[in-house]
Amino acid sequence: MKGKFITLEGPDGSGKTTISLKIVDQLEKEGYRVLLTREPGGVEIAEQIRNVILNKENIKMDAKTEALLYAAARRQHLIEKVLPALEKGYIVICDRFVDSSLAYQGVGRNLGIDKVYQMNLFAIEDVMPDKTIFFDIDYQLGLNRIKKNHRESDRLDDASDDFHKKVYEGYLKICDQYSLSLIHI
Amino acid sequence: MKGKFITLEGPDGSGKTTISLKIVDQLEKEGYRVLLTREPGGVEIAEQIRNVILNKENIKMDAKTEALLYAAARRQHLIEKVLPALEKGYIVICDRFVDSSLAYQGVGRNLGIDKVYQMNLFAIEDVMPDKTIFFDIDYQLGLNRIKKNHRESDRLDDASDDFHKKVYEGYLKICDQYSLSLIHI
Repeated sequence: MKGKFITLEGPDGSGKTTISLKIVDQLEKEGYRVLLTREPGGVEIAEQIRNVILNKENIKMDAKTEALLYAAARRQHLIEKVLPALEKGYIVICDRFVDSSLAYQGVGRNLGIDKVYQMNLFAIEDVMPDKTIFFDIDYQLGLNRIKKNHRESDRLDDASDDFHKKVYEGYLKICDQYSLSLIHI
Repeated sequence: MKGKFITLEGPDGSGKTTISLKIVDQLEKEGYRVLLTREPGGVEIAEQIRNVILNKENIKMDAKTEALLYAAARRQHLIEKVLPALEKGYIVICDRFVDSSLAYQGVGRNLGIDKVYQMNLFAIEDVMPDKTIFFDIDYQLGLNRIKKNHRESDRLDDASDDFHKKVYEGYLKICDQYSLSLIHI
């Protein structure tokens, strides 16, 4: 791959979007070609899958169904958008990638980090980020920011406080125990 | 599980639907409680996933995305409909299950039977059918029947003849090589 793949991770409301725009601006000033994208979604088929995942009426969704849908959206986005850009030499900055599934479904939904990772390998094969930036923010502060900004909540935002607490602890666990290139900022 | 889980497999147009209605009729006459259902779909969330899979406009869909979506629909259908009925003692007759993914995505889409099976274990865990009936019909005869019945084709029906040939050969391979309870009729 000629390009570089950078992923942004952290709870919702942690400032990923705001900071990512500044990173893109800086990199472009320095002459790099940059693609900013996000999961789930980013291409038409993945957006259709995103709609199923985040639909607030889908309250019966099983945790493993949710994990498989995220992996399906991830695969399509990777094949259609991320890999072609990396092959052209772009720096691809992606808001959320496989670590989100480890934290949200693996820990938040109690499916287990290893099981969710193994299943995701079917989707991503050997594509791992060159660098992952973890936005370390208390989950409650993140949730309050979303409410304050009047951003419409989705099915995941509406999950219990306990879920969001576990997701945050999941991220800290991934930072501590796995050899991923995580940066606390 | 108090009930029995029977799955029907084979190419489209092989007569699964017609025969399944006769099986249900016979079993009910004999006093059994029977649930007839089908994949992908069968419950609201799985139907939403089905719409993404079969949408004829989704021509860019990657084979692994397709396999993950089938597994997601399978999981939701299993949790919401199949397992509760089996627990109540029903005979559940399901038109397509994991063997369809092995034949269609594993062989038809060249993903490999083992890889597709391993990924599906995330979705089905230890739930395997008590009996699988394979409807052995030449794939071209099946496709012709669909056309003759003026059933509207979907994205999978519209795949190449070569794809349908490989799917059929995949089914024969599964019958021959794997220890599944397959019955040629």
